[in-house]
Amino acid sequence: MKEIAEKVVAGDVRTVARLIRDIDDGMPHVRDALKRLFPHTGRAYVIGITGAPGVGKSTLVDQMISHLRKNGKTVGVLAVDPTSPFSGGAILGDRVRMQRHSMDEGVFIRSLATRGHFGGLTQSTRSAIDVLDAMGKDYILVETVGVGQDEVDVVRSAHTTLIIVIPGMGDDIQAIKAGILEVGDIFVINKADRDGTDKTMSDLRLMIDMDQKKYKDGKWKPPILKTQAVFDQGVKELMDTIEEHRLYNFKTHGDLPFRKRKDRVGQELAEMVKARLIEEVIGGLVESGAFDMVVEEIVSGKLDPYTACERIVIPVLGKRP
Amino acid sequence: MKEIAEKVVAGDVRTVARLIRDIDDGMPHVRDALKRLFPHTGRAYVIGITGAPGVGKSTLVDQMISHLRKNGKTVGVLAVDPTSPFSGGAILGDRVRMQRHSMDEGVFIRSLATRGHFGGLTQSTRSAIDVLDAMGKDYILVETVGVGQDEVDVVRSAHTTLIIVIPGMGDDIQAIKAGILEVGDIFVINKADRDGTDKTMSDLRLMIDMDQKKYKDGKWKPPILKTQAVFDQGVKELMDTIEEHRLYNFKTHGDLPFRKRKDRVGQELAEMVKARLIEEVIGGLVESGAFDMVVEEIVSGKLDPYTACERIVIPVLGKRP
Repeated sequence: MKEIAEKVVAGDVRTVARLIRDIDDGMPHVRDALKRLFPHTGRAYVIGITGAPGVGKSTLVDQMISHLRKNGKTVGVLAVDPTSPFSGGAILGDRVRMQRHSMDEGVFIRSLATRGHFGGLTQSTRSAIDVLDAMGKDYILVETVGVGQDEVDVVRSAHTTLIIVIPGMGDDIQAIKAGILEVGDIFVINKADRDGTDKTMSDLRLMIDMDQKKYKDGKWKPPILKTQAVFDQGVKELMDTIEEHRLYNFKTHGDLPFRKRKDRVGQELAEMVKARLIEEVIGGLVESGAFDMVVEEIVSGKLDPYTACERIVIPVLGKRP
Repeated sequence: MKEIAEKVVAGDVRTVARLIRDIDDGMPHVRDALKRLFPHTGRAYVIGITGAPGVGKSTLVDQMISHLRKNGKTVGVLAVDPTSPFSGGAILGDRVRMQRHSMDEGVFIRSLATRGHFGGLTQSTRSAIDVLDAMGKDYILVETVGVGQDEVDVVRSAHTTLIIVIPGMGDDIQAIKAGILEVGDIFVINKADRDGTDKTMSDLRLMIDMDQKKYKDGKWKPPILKTQAVFDQGVKELMDTIEEHRLYNFKTHGDLPFRKRKDRVGQELAEMVKARLIEEVIGGLVESGAFDMVVEEIVSGKLDPYTACERIVIPVLGKRP
């Protein structure tokens, strides 16, 4: 394990690739490597990119990589796709756009689908971020499909979160905009040549302004940018705005490494404990066959699931000091 | 608690509303009511409706309610919106379309946002389904925003799952389509007057056909329907197709109540145990202040989060028989 950690810190691509795959597969042995890597983390700047399907996230990420590379920065990309457990290959086609960077040693791109049984998507993503961070990447771009609770949790691991929308997404977008307002640091209207861009802009502006009491006292107020990622239009301005937000973060939180800020640490630790408990408790019962016996009792109508749950949980918790 | 269960079974709307709110808020006292209600569940037919924002799910659900009511069926609707914890009110505007049914005693509509701390969205939704089922609703429509892992889990609780798309959602839709193929029983192209409907139809058809080996031996092959929900076009055909799928389910699984089928029971029990463990273990540590102390140690650099996790988990699990 010590050797794995050393190789990661030395930037060995094959070791990093294998470790991230093992994280994604929920292999228990990764924990020791992660412990050893943790002291080497805290230097990378993490950018979350989220938005509904079809808004052009991959194209935008591809352009962002180019801009960062032009400035001499190394880049790690994690494409987080919780839908792919069902069909592992689906994601590859989608990442084809980023392939032009695949021969660049300063760029490392991986997909995460979290095929591990009980470990959460958020946990796997954070561990993978740690690995790319320890590997020495300057920027880590985390792209997530959709805007469910999982995705919201994932982008909470980012220093700067971009919410990507396109014009004319319909009324339902209101519900989403409200939900992600809190996690969005920068809003991007992509495909901004389309009809309805001004309407989307004013809708977003209204949503943000409604929360204006939160933006007093110099607090960051999410700007709204227009891009046409496919033509690299507006991407330079986006990168400048990300840099502004980075400086704002630094001013607000000082040089305290991001992952070591108290609110984040608490949330991340809670999630890690959660993943472990499930793995051990349910995993153990499944292996011994005890879980199956309880399921049979419910199926045959002898037991209700709420009582069954207590039968499993109480022996575990009853013995705590 | 006995009284609550009795009132739910008698169809008392105020009791049901309060119980679902308490489920959503993660109140521990709901467990006893749910235990008592379980023997009264297993009769309702549950339809999941999912798809990206802007595809017109609420409008479609509204029309589905009308069709079911015309056939004399009672209907419960759960609008599951994991984004609303951040802004409780956001969802209301979106449900305005269903308001015309709000005076109909045969219809009961509620939103779930899962404000409870450690209980999962899926668990809350299943418990709320149990309540509406015990209340005597013939059909329960569960509408979810987005297509993240949470949503996929939620729709797994449905007898029939509709995946709603609209024409021209872009390339990324491929990734989603692959992810939800496994949970989609019927695909609906809504807003089917728009450009690109034929393209979306043939894309979906291709995706489904690629999996054709799964559809041998009389296995259900997801049909693709076109609707314009806003004009009630195609909704009758959709309801007929749902009925066909209901009969297929019955033929395949007999009269075994849905929630008592072995695969479902196992999955649901695992999730319930998960929610309880988190609630008790982390909830307990937070209350005693122990969690905060560990967080401080990580923040100050004395401890890495992976080791901290073991310190919490091992005392709990080490004492198991």
